Amino acid sequence: MRVFAENGVCFRQRERHTFAMTEEALQGHRYRVAPGATVDLASMATLPALADRKDKRFLRSLLQQRVERFSELQDKLYGEGRQALLLVFQGMDAAGKDSTIKRVTAGVNPQGFRVADFVRPTALEMKHSWLHRHWLALPERGRIGIFNRSHYEEVVTVRVRPELIAERKLPPRRIDDEFWSERLADIVSFEQHLCRNGFSVVKFFLHVSKSEQRRRLVKRIGDPDKHWKFDLADLEARSLWAGYQQAYGTAIQATTTTEAPWYVVPADDKPAMRAIVAAVVVDALEAMAPEYPQPDAKLRRDIGTAQRTLSG
Amino acid sequence: MRVFAENGVCFRQRERHTFAMTEEALQGHRYRVAPGATVDLASMATLPALADRKDKRFLRSLLQQRVERFSELQDKLYGEGRQALLLVFQGMDAAGKDSTIKRVTAGVNPQGFRVADFVRPTALEMKHSWLHRHWLALPERGRIGIFNRSHYEEVVTVRVRPELIAERKLPPRRIDDEFWSERLADIVSFEQHLCRNGFSVVKFFLHVSKSEQRRRLVKRIGDPDKHWKFDLADLEARSLWAGYQQAYGTAIQATTTTEAPWYVVPADDKPAMRAIVAAVVVDALEAMAPEYPQPDAKLRRDIGTAQRTLSG
Repeated sequence: MRVFAENGVCFRQRERHTFAMTEEALQGHRYRVAPGATVDLASMATLPALADRKDKRFLRSLLQQRVERFSELQDKLYGEGRQALLLVFQGMDAAGKDSTIKRVTAGVNPQGFRVADFVRPTALEMKHSWLHRHWLALPERGRIGIFNRSHYEEVVTVRVRPELIAERKLPPRRIDDEFWSERLADIVSFEQHLCRNGFSVVKFFLHVSKSEQRRRLVKRIGDPDKHWKFDLADLEARSLWAGYQQAYGTAIQATTTTEAPWYVVPADDKPAMRAIVAAVVVDALEAMAPEYPQPDAKLRRDIGTAQRTLSG
Repeated sequence: MRVFAENGVCFRQRERHTFAMTEEALQGHRYRVAPGATVDLASMATLPALADRKDKRFLRSLLQQRVERFSELQDKLYGEGRQALLLVFQGMDAAGKDSTIKRVTAGVNPQGFRVADFVRPTALEMKHSWLHRHWLALPERGRIGIFNRSHYEEVVTVRVRPELIAERKLPPRRIDDEFWSERLADIVSFEQHLCRNGFSVVKFFLHVSKSEQRRRLVKRIGDPDKHWKFDLADLEARSLWAGYQQAYGTAIQATTTTEAPWYVVPADDKPAMRAIVAAVVVDALEAMAPEYPQPDAKLRRDIGTAQRTLSG
């Protein structure tokens, strides 16, 4: 049980079987949405199938182990400077987007990140096409971009609340199924372009249940330090729950591709969710296989000169 | 002959027939490349079929008339603030891109323009995907964007000189026909997205002959005021003439669409070329049919109040 030794935690022999089952349940690929699959969020788990839900110690150890690997790979990605990774986070309010981003990136070099938080578009942003501000926020080669909310708001929130379109100053046109299909196709083309040019794109839907959301919102209202996060609009979105789930399902189904897959991550258990997200990120980076650039002949000579000079 | 009276120019009766033929030859739609058409630049005219090539006075009068209409429509587009027009200019060196842009926009309100001149990408630009800098340069709603060279350089110049790809720090991959087809498909998706969101896209290939280019480059070398425009790379591109024509033909054929058409404009006669480009721009704006926003009830009341106050 190498895992536990590395993190300096000691476990009893009889826990091993439970841990192995838990680790299996927290692998990233289990939550990937295959291209062509029908997505019905109502039938998808908001809790992972853990053998022992209460063992937070093991979940934390697993997260720590994955974050350490994330950090190693991110350093290589930065050094290589040829690829970029875009992580998209979507979910209902209180699904845990902010805290998951914070915990999964804890200890990873912030120089390698670019986090963009997409709130309601500004007047200037609305003067451009809806994809424009997302293009502006993309990470450079060598970096990891995180979209906390993203271009998917335009096919989910805006679809559930079509009155938002009137603000966008578009030329008048009918807002029908074709309108939304076009937006979804534009997203697929956008992400495909990125994947053809050295980007990897990974998208997370943090799947929280309506009852767990209520519990978290109640807790938020009860904690003055969390009041800044409270927004009456969250309750409005909650009242449109079914519409949001439908719009998310449609968007995920239409835009999950081999190159830019969606992961529907159970979000009712935060430590488990974080361990799963970290696993997906590590898997994505392993697949990108970043390598530090190999020194060329001149650099090798320069390093030799430096060694002789410094030892002299 | 209303046209001539408006511009304060007087023509003799016997010239009318010639002028009518010339005006017909200088209409924009004659140079539009239909979707699905085979594009063979070698077989396409570098001179328009004018009855009397020497009558510069008539050509200037025609340009002036079109530019005036351009100015009226641009003012409405700006006031309306819902649509945007993107004009893309491509062509071999000395085809007349700079001077055409200057002459066709002469007298039109510069506040409504955004001109972007795409030279060799900077180190920072190369850290992004190749479409990124073009997204950044797009005009806001209500404005006209002009790309002097554009994203098409990436499927023409870079295709003719594939060694340029090595500089771009892309992950290694084979540069084959599929690579270029993907880039062309990405351009179609990019422009389609714009057209779905209130943009019109019009693309000009200023089609100069190799002999006329030589004449202009020789003239440039002979004029010290034009020396800043001289670049030895122009001669290198000239030596790859056939490759450029082939790459342009392929790109134009693959990306001319109903929504974002290409116009192959004969460029050996500059005054005629400008009159044609102006015609295409006017036609595009007429099709967009911009309208000043109608005042709502409140604004009408406010205007009434202002009238009473100011007359009191």
